[in-house]
Amino acid sequence: MKKSKIPEVTIMRLSSYSRVLNEALDRGEKIISSKGIATLTGVSPDQVRKDLAYFGEFGVRGIGYNIEGLKSNISKIIGTNRNWKVAIAGLGHLGGSLVSYPGFLRRGFIMAGIFDVKNIGDKYGELYVEHIDNFEKIAKEVGFDLGIIVVPREFAQSVADIMVKSGIKAILNFAPVMLDVPENVEIKNIDLSMFLEMLSYYMALKM
Amino acid sequence: MKKSKIPEVTIMRLSSYSRVLNEALDRGEKIISSKGIATLTGVSPDQVRKDLAYFGEFGVRGIGYNIEGLKSNISKIIGTNRNWKVAIAGLGHLGGSLVSYPGFLRRGFIMAGIFDVKNIGDKYGELYVEHIDNFEKIAKEVGFDLGIIVVPREFAQSVADIMVKSGIKAILNFAPVMLDVPENVEIKNIDLSMFLEMLSYYMALKM
Repeated sequence: MKKSKIPEVTIMRLSSYSRVLNEALDRGEKIISSKGIATLTGVSPDQVRKDLAYFGEFGVRGIGYNIEGLKSNISKIIGTNRNWKVAIAGLGHLGGSLVSYPGFLRRGFIMAGIFDVKNIGDKYGELYVEHIDNFEKIAKEVGFDLGIIVVPREFAQSVADIMVKSGIKAILNFAPVMLDVPENVEIKNIDLSMFLEMLSYYMALKM
Repeated sequence: MKKSKIPEVTIMRLSSYSRVLNEALDRGEKIISSKGIATLTGVSPDQVRKDLAYFGEFGVRGIGYNIEGLKSNISKIIGTNRNWKVAIAGLGHLGGSLVSYPGFLRRGFIMAGIFDVKNIGDKYGELYVEHIDNFEKIAKEVGFDLGIIVVPREFAQSVADIMVKSGIKAILNFAPVMLDVPENVEIKNIDLSMFLEMLSYYMALKM
């Protein structure tokens, strides 16, 4: 399998194809066409074929893709063929909802640590809220893979620094501020209003 | 201004440039270079120039962009030069956090209706939870522009149908299911685990 940096939008689509494949497996299906994947994900069949072509030939022309095989290949590519331990910092409204977001566990992301500066000791599922000052110590014990930052913007950089110092190599940042991290740390900034702005763009187009 | 369908990733980046421009204005700055925008958003200067070129020439070579002018142009493009009324259906953990998401209002998205099948009458800010069965009636009074669906997947299609019937032309769907809507309705599906999967992809690349 070719391992090179491919466009993020492709990764996002692969991630959505993989959901559709899971559902097809649940329905007892064995084979799916690129058109089938396309219909179920709202992408064009050409785009599906183009995305999958990044990784070599998974399908058989005129027959389609073996669902189990394709799913397993995509999992290897997007790294969901294993579990990842996630630490989250910030348990406000959004943070609290992320901790219990059912989609994470289903995709192999295990909430393994939750941190804040208040409500220490509160219980979320099996986890207790820990003070952010204990992050590094707990990270040593637990071994977090990924960090999620949902703290107010003025604290986001110092939380990122703590995560990086504790060995975390990938951070999802919901705070509306660009964070400074070493080059070997992947960071993905998410602002939920961006999604509304994509819609307002389409609405404005029509006016 | 050319109004054609441009890639969604470009729209997302424009939306992030626009944040940076707001911040620069707040700091009292007047001019910014594409390199400046690039540094503040984590995008390459070439990409910034390429994205802005979709819409014509906003900058002056060797000088940069007039921040106020560029901001206003981007706002027109992404449709944030006006306010949009948002209706949200589903007030579970994630829905509840979206209702009070501070970024929405800041970007011109006004929460104008919140709907569920339980906890009717509960207050969120200035709004009371209304029963989803009253959606169409309330939509007629309020005039919602955008809908957000955060209900369990088994109810998502019927909520989408209600929104479409009530005249909503753009829907942000957080339920993990593809929704069937008429072609003139824009729909954007968001699964938060996709963002973690982009990170796990990078982590897997390094192994």
